[in-house]
Amino acid sequence: MIAQEYKKMLGAKSVIREMFTYGTERAKEIGKENVFDYSLGNPSVPVPEKFTKKMIELLETESPVALHGYSPSLGIDSVREAVAVSLEKRFGLPYKKEHIFMCSGAAAALAHAFRAVTVPGDSILTFAPFFPEYNPYVNLTGAKLKVVPPDLKGFQIDFEKFETMLTNDVTAVLINTPNNPSGIVYTTDTVRELARIMEKKAAEYGHEIYLISDEPYREIVFEGVDAPFIAKYYPNTITCYSFSKSLSLPGERIGYVAVSPSCNEAETIVDMCGQISRGIGHNCPASLIQLAVADCLYDTADLSVYEKNANILYDALTGMGFEIVRPGGTFYMFPKAPEPDAVAFCKRAMKQDLLLVPGDTFGCPGYFRMAYCIETEKVERSLYAFRKL
Amino acid sequence: MIAQEYKKMLGAKSVIREMFTYGTERAKEIGKENVFDYSLGNPSVPVPEKFTKKMIELLETESPVALHGYSPSLGIDSVREAVAVSLEKRFGLPYKKEHIFMCSGAAAALAHAFRAVTVPGDSILTFAPFFPEYNPYVNLTGAKLKVVPPDLKGFQIDFEKFETMLTNDVTAVLINTPNNPSGIVYTTDTVRELARIMEKKAAEYGHEIYLISDEPYREIVFEGVDAPFIAKYYPNTITCYSFSKSLSLPGERIGYVAVSPSCNEAETIVDMCGQISRGIGHNCPASLIQLAVADCLYDTADLSVYEKNANILYDALTGMGFEIVRPGGTFYMFPKAPEPDAVAFCKRAMKQDLLLVPGDTFGCPGYFRMAYCIETEKVERSLYAFRKL
Repeated sequence: MIAQEYKKMLGAKSVIREMFTYGTERAKEIGKENVFDYSLGNPSVPVPEKFTKKMIELLETESPVALHGYSPSLGIDSVREAVAVSLEKRFGLPYKKEHIFMCSGAAAALAHAFRAVTVPGDSILTFAPFFPEYNPYVNLTGAKLKVVPPDLKGFQIDFEKFETMLTNDVTAVLINTPNNPSGIVYTTDTVRELARIMEKKAAEYGHEIYLISDEPYREIVFEGVDAPFIAKYYPNTITCYSFSKSLSLPGERIGYVAVSPSCNEAETIVDMCGQISRGIGHNCPASLIQLAVADCLYDTADLSVYEKNANILYDALTGMGFEIVRPGGTFYMFPKAPEPDAVAFCKRAMKQDLLLVPGDTFGCPGYFRMAYCIETEKVERSLYAFRKL
Repeated sequence: MIAQEYKKMLGAKSVIREMFTYGTERAKEIGKENVFDYSLGNPSVPVPEKFTKKMIELLETESPVALHGYSPSLGIDSVREAVAVSLEKRFGLPYKKEHIFMCSGAAAALAHAFRAVTVPGDSILTFAPFFPEYNPYVNLTGAKLKVVPPDLKGFQIDFEKFETMLTNDVTAVLINTPNNPSGIVYTTDTVRELARIMEKKAAEYGHEIYLISDEPYREIVFEGVDAPFIAKYYPNTITCYSFSKSLSLPGERIGYVAVSPSCNEAETIVDMCGQISRGIGHNCPASLIQLAVADCLYDTADLSVYEKNANILYDALTGMGFEIVRPGGTFYMFPKAPEPDAVAFCKRAMKQDLLLVPGDTFGCPGYFRMAYCIETEKVERSLYAFRKL
């Protein structure tokens, strides 16, 4: 019999989807270049040429049977090793191959991390505003996502509310910095205080509380921004990484879980990820793409356009009177809507061919998200539409 | 807190793993060419050149942002369409794009199919001998795998036992033909009778019973063998396919779910797969590999070596007195061990540098599996070791 749980999900209305349909229709009428689509978080810059060259080299020179053969269930050894070395070099923690599990993007990394350190009935705490996919990601494991209300001043953490909500049933805390949708980056002070409270509560409850750090935007940090490497501040940290944004490879589904060397039973958690895969049907990301990415661990796509767009938009929109917490990274910002109902505001914006996403699904009504991973020229042209709005 | 369910799985002993370690050590001593490794089901022939050429062409000519962009959650439209057309052409069922869900190999296909048509507490029925990974694949969804004892005469189906075990709690039947580990292919008569009983029972219980057909070996069928396309015989069929064996691409993780056009709520089931993905962390197979595979839907690697090896081994081993059901496809055969304890027999074989896998984990003690996806020359040399044994 069809599983009703999933069938019901099909009925859910999505503002983003509605907007996407509208945008597609409108693009047919007035031309794609005249629809200012700030709704989708798709990288707009090409992968480094080095990646493409490495892919072609592998295809042209390696034995196909070896090249396309099964990856070991935790990832190709040499790739895990290279990732560990790169993390040690960049962040100074003694990662080894045994701490790395290769997987198909951040969604897969989270799917494994959640199952490794929580069981059905546990709670996972996260902070608004948050990526709405965390709802199905967590709730479909049988654990429960609980959301700490936003700190509206700076989109850091409201520690008073956090401490109240960090009850005995919480076995993991999920953070996302640089953040989708706010674009802010947690400061070192924020991360230290987060760690202090978590350590205190873990001792009080007599069980571990894992910190799951979702870091697909780690490499997109703007100039002068304090962007601490999370695992350095809390031992029981599981880092979930994706190359989707750093290398502009979202379709190729490649990322990893890195369990901190200081984590309790770190290597066991990595080994468990291989077992979790058997239940959820992953068997590693594509071998070829693992090998090519391992060659680009110190590279990124040219991410500078995102900072440029952020500056243009921040200056222009605040000049028009919008209240915005200045983004420290990513390609998102999260202005306050000039009217209480952000959904109504975004619908009005749609009439000006501006596609903006209301903050309600991010756990933060009254705000809206802009994904400015589009051409700078288009950003500039869109300012006229904002003024009209 | 660490999830004990997965931690416990790490303790499980695996005969295949033990054998793999022994084989690796032994290869260092006497040379890899002198270890006759029949333990692993890894394709031994290269991917068609057409695939490699297409990959390089895509990398050299397509815009990287478009090429490596997100795939829609059900798969790239043109790829789903091409798969549907190829199935219609080859098997005569009116598949449309809406019946196809692209996913990362057969393991992922099964992970989606199980969750789409069963809920925790349901039972899924399969037939011994069976691929042992079905245990974690099914049991970790919360459903329960039940195994119909083998038909030892021909490894078809013992229908009397099947009918007894097809109780009201069974909502899906899982078959794998051509079969791992037996190498046999269900005949048209077998499939018809299977369908007849399932239809009768579904009517009796007043609920659907889905047929989940795991078909990674569909293209490896030997000359003259009757190999019906399962979905033609039972409307509520969900076909789980992988290109791992047909194109020799196991590491690239690419396959699909094809829901029969005659299936109850076929398109809904496909849409549900996209929702299931949100819970288990898949977001489609790699875009690039989807596109390249779509160009090879009427091709296979040169699979003839498997049939050649099968014939050599079958003739030689039956000549030595082994009892074997002649395989109709795949690259496996499943002889009866000449002593009741197949584990003891396989350990004795290991001393002759023959790596064979006892049938116990396949739900069929007293037999052993041989994966003959190795060079024919090695197969021939191994016969001496069999004689000594």
